[in-house]
Amino acid sequence: MKGVAWILSVGNELLIGRVVNTNAAWLASKLTFLGYSVRRIVVVPDEENDIVEAFREAINRADVVILTGGLGPTPDDITNLAFCKALGVEAVVNDEALKMVRGKYESRGYALTPERIKMAMMPPGATPLPNPVGTAPGILYESGGKLVVLLPGVPKEMEAIFENHVEPLLKSRGPPVYFSEREVVVRGVPEADIAPVIREVMRLDKRVYVKSHPRGFEVNAPLLHIHIYASAGSKEEAEALVSKASDRLIELIKLKYGDRASISTG
Amino acid sequence: MKGVAWILSVGNELLIGRVVNTNAAWLASKLTFLGYSVRRIVVVPDEENDIVEAFREAINRADVVILTGGLGPTPDDITNLAFCKALGVEAVVNDEALKMVRGKYESRGYALTPERIKMAMMPPGATPLPNPVGTAPGILYESGGKLVVLLPGVPKEMEAIFENHVEPLLKSRGPPVYFSEREVVVRGVPEADIAPVIREVMRLDKRVYVKSHPRGFEVNAPLLHIHIYASAGSKEEAEALVSKASDRLIELIKLKYGDRASISTG
Repeated sequence: MKGVAWILSVGNELLIGRVVNTNAAWLASKLTFLGYSVRRIVVVPDEENDIVEAFREAINRADVVILTGGLGPTPDDITNLAFCKALGVEAVVNDEALKMVRGKYESRGYALTPERIKMAMMPPGATPLPNPVGTAPGILYESGGKLVVLLPGVPKEMEAIFENHVEPLLKSRGPPVYFSEREVVVRGVPEADIAPVIREVMRLDKRVYVKSHPRGFEVNAPLLHIHIYASAGSKEEAEALVSKASDRLIELIKLKYGDRASISTG
Repeated sequence: MKGVAWILSVGNELLIGRVVNTNAAWLASKLTFLGYSVRRIVVVPDEENDIVEAFREAINRADVVILTGGLGPTPDDITNLAFCKALGVEAVVNDEALKMVRGKYESRGYALTPERIKMAMMPPGATPLPNPVGTAPGILYESGGKLVVLLPGVPKEMEAIFENHVEPLLKSRGPPVYFSEREVVVRGVPEADIAPVIREVMRLDKRVYVKSHPRGFEVNAPLLHIHIYASAGSKEEAEALVSKASDRLIELIKLKYGDRASISTG
């Protein structure tokens, strides 16, 4: 693993259940495939104290922190300012970021209001990340080997900035790590009976992780999706680990349950 | 507001981005409409230390804690045991819960293995909540005015237990609180220009909250969904607050932008 990652999501709309946090799932998948171990997703409201607290804890505990939300021009967009407070530094207008913001508005005849200038404010030494879709730049900040990235909450903007600027950087940090996964679907055996089999498969290699997800009704019509994951230093090695674990899982289930179990892979 | 709520989600599948956390959004919406202020959603892996830490912090900070995931029969389902550890008590087999679990399995000829008995373990004094869909009971625990509820991660099971047993209890606690919301859609005005208008509408009443969500491209084709929320002691009062705020918002936008703005409500 390349390091521990935390994902922070800012927005009241997530905490009243109006919006499902697809941003966090998208980022979690990206970070996992890049070789990072995502240990927390934390959702906080659009309030300074909560954002500052979340930043401080995340920076303290993780190697990489990715935050989404609260970078726009409205009064409740305060993430960049809260980030400065968490670091204990004064927010400054970044010249490059201001150029980006000004370019978006002035060419269409809109004035550069204080709300718009706010989108160019960040900690001294931070790098603005161009937003090809919307107006608020992302913010990248490195300190003491830790990386903090602030992205807008609008999914199209977040994804574009991540793929253009954050993913290449994360890929280049540390040794290469590859992640592989496979799914085995088992009908006819309750989850509780599979538990000792999963325990045995996980003993094969500590880089392998196996988890069952019940889909049917556990007792009447048991249907399990069993996910197998592994990470290793090369693509081939990660895939070989997953193959080995998957073969062993199927072998053990057949041995133990014979015709009762119907198995398929995907 | 009836109190502060935290939502905890346990599961590696959420942290590798394989599953989107729809459970948290569903619960957040339920809790909000029941009058609670959801202040955090925290996702942790299937590991004891992480779950214990999340429980301790949540119980310390919130009045109501709702957790989903990790109550099943597999080896990585450890939430009920981690909860006991967080409370500093020994997990005991709850007789009523054991009856529920036994009933599910024995009637279909399955044995009561240690993995299945584990699903009946909880802190002394906790109440098991019948699961009409799956096998793992929910767990309800009250102490010092705080309420902690553990629910399975399978959405159908979580929703059924919540609606049958948790929602009526939360409704009965504290004074009645009603929540109302409305959406105003504005085309043709950039989000940054709406910011001062939103600030003015929010000054109407501290029980009103207004937030804009950009949907189109901020500068070329601005499209904003503006959400207005209010909570009050009666349904009528909450609706009246939202109506008043919505009317004022539309009035101010018309006044300021005239024909440039195209407004609709939903």
